[in-house]
Amino acid sequence: MSDVTTLATQVLALARAKGVQIATAESCTGGLIIGALTEIAGSSDVVDRGFITYSNGAKMDMLGVHAATLETYGAVSEAIALEMADGALAHSNAGLSVSVTGIAGPGGSEFKPEGRVCFGLAQTGQVTLSKTVEFGPLGRANVRKATVQTALEWLQDALS
Amino acid sequence: MSDVTTLATQVLALARAKGVQIATAESCTGGLIIGALTEIAGSSDVVDRGFITYSNGAKMDMLGVHAATLETYGAVSEAIALEMADGALAHSNAGLSVSVTGIAGPGGSEFKPEGRVCFGLAQTGQVTLSKTVEFGPLGRANVRKATVQTALEWLQDALS
Repeated sequence: MSDVTTLATQVLALARAKGVQIATAESCTGGLIIGALTEIAGSSDVVDRGFITYSNGAKMDMLGVHAATLETYGAVSEAIALEMADGALAHSNAGLSVSVTGIAGPGGSEFKPEGRVCFGLAQTGQVTLSKTVEFGPLGRANVRKATVQTALEWLQDALS
Repeated sequence: MSDVTTLATQVLALARAKGVQIATAESCTGGLIIGALTEIAGSSDVVDRGFITYSNGAKMDMLGVHAATLETYGAVSEAIALEMADGALAHSNAGLSVSVTGIAGPGGSEFKPEGRVCFGLAQTGQVTLSKTVEFGPLGRANVRKATVQTALEWLQDALS
């Protein structure tokens, strides 16, 4: 089993034991986090849904992200990651959500380098968390892969 | 490049040339179709969003699938694939959507075998289409992979 398969299996087992359903809100990974979770047979009892909000319009429509936050901080920011994670909880039956928004590359911008990914983690009744990881210019596929791994590890920590 | 990467690249180029945005509505693939499309750099101009509706509740909330249709035909049916594809268009800025709902396995039921996948395809101003493919008991990962390939081929045909 790959690391990601092992991690996904552990996340599902922990969520099942706690009776918690999971939702994802994904921008730069475009569905790969929920794709990894649902690779495991029997995942349907704990995986509720995923919001793949590639465009800013999708982030606003599907997750209730605010236009003002996008304008002030940009789509790749912890402020947006927090709103995405909160929105995923609010618009689902999940009790735990993870969000990612980042620059998979190639290329960054003057202020936001390739490989920067912001994560959010929301749990019912708890303060929503965010963090930023600079994966660096590993290439698009590798940044996405590393982002999936980090998101699954954060879900695992949250459930442990 | 893998077949899927080549296909995804072609779908994006065709959609870009036509000025059409794409949405996906995925059950058994759990995000892997939009995951394949967004693997390609520059996909953000034509990929709008994805609805990963793993649970029946998600299908109803996010896509407007009807409880009566679920009850009458079951989640793995062309009737549901049609409603999912229509719902993806109605709830997005996309002009083209593909939907999948199937039994990735392991295991089927008395009436619905492992490897059965129903697809829907909706385009603005056109009749929504559906089809069923019996991939057979190839194993979960292979059924999902074959489903992604078939969905991308259908998008390619629709745009050609």
